[in-house]
Amino acid sequence: MKVDGVPTRTIWLEPDGWAVRIIDQTRFPHRFETVRLETVEDAARAIRDMQVRGAPLIGATAAYGMCLAAYADPAEPWLTDCHELLLSTRPTAVNLRWALGEMMLTLRRHSLRDRTTAAYARAAALCDEDVEINRAIGRNGLALIAEIAAAKADGAPVNILTHCNAGWLATVDWGTATAPIYMAHDAGLNVHVWVDETRPRNQGAALTAWELGRHGVPHTVIPDNTGGHLMQHGLVDMVIVGTDRTTASGDVCNKIGTYLKALAAQDNGVPFYVALPSPTIDFTIADGLAEIPIEQRAPEEVTRITGRTASGRIETVTIVPEGSPAANYAFDVTPARLVTGLITERGVIRASREAIEETFGAARREAGA
Amino acid sequence: MKVDGVPTRTIWLEPDGWAVRIIDQTRFPHRFETVRLETVEDAARAIRDMQVRGAPLIGATAAYGMCLAAYADPAEPWLTDCHELLLSTRPTAVNLRWALGEMMLTLRRHSLRDRTTAAYARAAALCDEDVEINRAIGRNGLALIAEIAAAKADGAPVNILTHCNAGWLATVDWGTATAPIYMAHDAGLNVHVWVDETRPRNQGAALTAWELGRHGVPHTVIPDNTGGHLMQHGLVDMVIVGTDRTTASGDVCNKIGTYLKALAAQDNGVPFYVALPSPTIDFTIADGLAEIPIEQRAPEEVTRITGRTASGRIETVTIVPEGSPAANYAFDVTPARLVTGLITERGVIRASREAIEETFGAARREAGA
Repeated sequence: MKVDGVPTRTIWLEPDGWAVRIIDQTRFPHRFETVRLETVEDAARAIRDMQVRGAPLIGATAAYGMCLAAYADPAEPWLTDCHELLLSTRPTAVNLRWALGEMMLTLRRHSLRDRTTAAYARAAALCDEDVEINRAIGRNGLALIAEIAAAKADGAPVNILTHCNAGWLATVDWGTATAPIYMAHDAGLNVHVWVDETRPRNQGAALTAWELGRHGVPHTVIPDNTGGHLMQHGLVDMVIVGTDRTTASGDVCNKIGTYLKALAAQDNGVPFYVALPSPTIDFTIADGLAEIPIEQRAPEEVTRITGRTASGRIETVTIVPEGSPAANYAFDVTPARLVTGLITERGVIRASREAIEETFGAARREAGA
Repeated sequence: MKVDGVPTRTIWLEPDGWAVRIIDQTRFPHRFETVRLETVEDAARAIRDMQVRGAPLIGATAAYGMCLAAYADPAEPWLTDCHELLLSTRPTAVNLRWALGEMMLTLRRHSLRDRTTAAYARAAALCDEDVEINRAIGRNGLALIAEIAAAKADGAPVNILTHCNAGWLATVDWGTATAPIYMAHDAGLNVHVWVDETRPRNQGAALTAWELGRHGVPHTVIPDNTGGHLMQHGLVDMVIVGTDRTTASGDVCNKIGTYLKALAAQDNGVPFYVALPSPTIDFTIADGLAEIPIEQRAPEEVTRITGRTASGRIETVTIVPEGSPAANYAFDVTPARLVTGLITERGVIRASREAIEETFGAARREAGA
């Protein structure tokens, strides 16, 4: 997407053709800084320190990490060591494991002489595949927005509420929940986005607001408490969120608070859509509520907030009384019954076992999953 | 309630018998400081600068402001000027207007010589009446908590979720939503409170957590996004919130985000109670959603957060990107259909026109309201 007019991805090759550049996402929303990665250790650090985040972008960074490894030395046991190093940065990240596996397959399939070139080509292809999936999600979601826009009088804005950041900053480009929004905006439709700030980590206020603003999409940041009131008063036309994991029956695991917005959407007849690339469907799980364990993160993410002072300094402040404990559940599960539709790269489908099986079952069996 | 073992109200007479002391609530949760009020101007400033907040406490402070006025000079036109001054601090506060009216009636009913004494007596009575109403709310809510506790195995905690601050800091003592909680705790029941931080002004994290902690009530601060997930997993036994205004049909206007918790409570079969003193029932309004205008406050309350730094300094930081606008709707309306019951000073009643009329209709007609 654009950053102040310049088309930008979250990860790209430097002009020298071998080093890699990323956006340092730990500095958002107060600074836009990029970082040059020259070694596999640089790539591992970028993932571990969360300079990159979002499953697709973590996978892409790890893939380029293997390119940097091969650029330094295409031989074993170095490559296996590097694979281990990158894998250890986020041991539970499925996409990271998958991308590293793809890279090792590519590397081992080629002679020492050709390995580095082949690795760079595969990493570039992985990035392009992510972009293409998101572009397809965008096209499918665009049709939903265009339909709402067509029913509006005199070009009134289509108000879309989103939660957390399922934006281009979490992917290589376009994002998932944001892809339809960017396409609608670029197509000249009048869209306005309500951006849930998304406590406790404030990814909405810090990341979604930043990327929408830099691309020029009209938006307003709201506390997470606000969406229900807006829906009661007809100020939300649709909700689009992302997901970390969707079950075989269409239950949606996403950032904590998503479930509350889904309840409000249902209570007010507002369509509630979840945008997802099909690889995030977990066919091994049926009942999201019973079977998905919810990570509890550090309470300090709740009790402390980082921002910039009037003088521009970045400062962290504590917002609870001394001695008051806090709990930090990272995700919740929205039952399929509250989901109007899943916006996937293969079309908008119902959040049901039948629709998911019909659309993705064959592909799943082919992949042997 | 107790502050580190010492029974404390939010407003009290100094040992000298004429000056007034309040807690400076603008310093919460980082400092516990009290302020001595010696003049009517002191009282007006305390209200205007929000050192005191909450309708009952604002009324009590204004009442004592008239005492300080009479202590300086019990004659006219001074008293009328002081009445005007105090009224102008929060022109829309119904309770403030009512308390000032009561004080002027008392003052004018007495001779110059007796006025000051009569004023102090009336102000003390107003405070005591507030305490008694809240104590009655507490007793009625305590029965609900005791019932849940009795059904628990082996003294497991009763988990109560609350939103915003309807605590003793908003009243003279006890609070409304917190009164049943304090009574249950003091009676030896095992209660634990989930405290919604309550963005954007963080009254839960700043005030409710502080007062529960200082009284010794076990509690955990959570982001406003968390309650739905907790209810899905059986971790909330009941919700108790306060209200700014309840309609004749039982719709509840309260801090933004209350409606989302009511939806989650209904979806998970968790009882949702609203604690209120009957003077907050607005018999002139039936449909809360259509008829109650929702105040929009300054966006800076969303975009900036104040806390204490690691070195103990109080600092304000901005958490959104430059150029991203924010919206700040202060309240929402929870329809009566989502409310399990109203905990009032006259008992726990259904949130319905019939129950409200039956319980408070006669009193209302007597008052000529």
